[in-house]
Amino acid sequence: MEFSNEIQQTPFLQLVSQRKSIRRFNEKKLKREDILTCLEAARLAPSAENAQPWRYLVIDDPDIKKRFANEAFSGIYSVSKFAQKAPVLILVMARLNVITHRVGKQIQNIQFHLIDIGISGEHLVLQAEELGIGTCWMGWFSTRKTRKFFSIPKKFKIAALLAMGYYDKKPSRKRKRKQIKEIVWFNKMDSD
Amino acid sequence: MEFSNEIQQTPFLQLVSQRKSIRRFNEKKLKREDILTCLEAARLAPSAENAQPWRYLVIDDPDIKKRFANEAFSGIYSVSKFAQKAPVLILVMARLNVITHRVGKQIQNIQFHLIDIGISGEHLVLQAEELGIGTCWMGWFSTRKTRKFFSIPKKFKIAALLAMGYYDKKPSRKRKRKQIKEIVWFNKMDSD
Repeated sequence: MEFSNEIQQTPFLQLVSQRKSIRRFNEKKLKREDILTCLEAARLAPSAENAQPWRYLVIDDPDIKKRFANEAFSGIYSVSKFAQKAPVLILVMARLNVITHRVGKQIQNIQFHLIDIGISGEHLVLQAEELGIGTCWMGWFSTRKTRKFFSIPKKFKIAALLAMGYYDKKPSRKRKRKQIKEIVWFNKMDSD
Repeated sequence: MEFSNEIQQTPFLQLVSQRKSIRRFNEKKLKREDILTCLEAARLAPSAENAQPWRYLVIDDPDIKKRFANEAFSGIYSVSKFAQKAPVLILVMARLNVITHRVGKQIQNIQFHLIDIGISGEHLVLQAEELGIGTCWMGWFSTRKTRKFFSIPKKFKIAALLAMGYYDKKPSRKRKRKQIKEIVWFNKMDSD
């Protein structure tokens, strides 16, 4: 099947097409107003049983950010050091909840709160893109040192980190994506 | 802290504000072109290590959909029967991958592919919203019977189901969300 000539151009497709993960930030500060607008988009996300498990710890104090980055990106995580130059880091956590965590895991064998974290965090990312602010989803940092640094209670699962800031230019390299026929089937599974 | 007067109005905030989970669909058929446009938005999502774990099985054949719904929404899952009236159901799966699944789980203790599924699936949902198409994320259906019905190999984890279609009107009830101060901290964790 060939699908590509059936796809329309839409404003939303334009937004998701132009978004790229930003790993080189410039020094321009982010306004709290803009950060809050992104968080508002995240807040309005749908979630399993409307549990809204997402919690965001915004790190925009330069001194705290520097000390945190020294911990979180040390040792085997040093490949993530680029993020210490981001003017803002946002720690994304999930508040574990009986229904979506325990029941979800035991009956459906799926951690719905992680899907919800993806949904909400991507609202933040796309709102940032619309405001001209770059972001990068990060999974590779010391969650152990992060928990210790901020004294994060066990009831919050540390899920990801978002680096956020302005940039001089987007990376020219286009990250490849699988073709639509590699990820979509209609009405039956074909062989992989 | 009071934040709400600092939030700007943006086109993207408008889009996420107007989206509601739709559980009552009308009979108008969806065009493949529109479904594919939504899938294109999903395809372009970012993912951990660019693994693109998402796989979408689109069920838009009325007969297959009916037989599938009879299986997936039976017994304890009958509360999800509303979805059998959706003109399209999309099964969202994750292709398990060594790096994001095994390494992610063992070192970082996080299933990145589920976050990725949330990110990509929400791209689909927001593109649908922009096209005037309603959706509903669903987690409550028989994954066991779903796997059997479509003979889905074990390497695909069944993550969620999206109901999709046109609607006569959106539900008037506004689902409550936590306030921003309940989900956001700045530079340190306050007590919960």
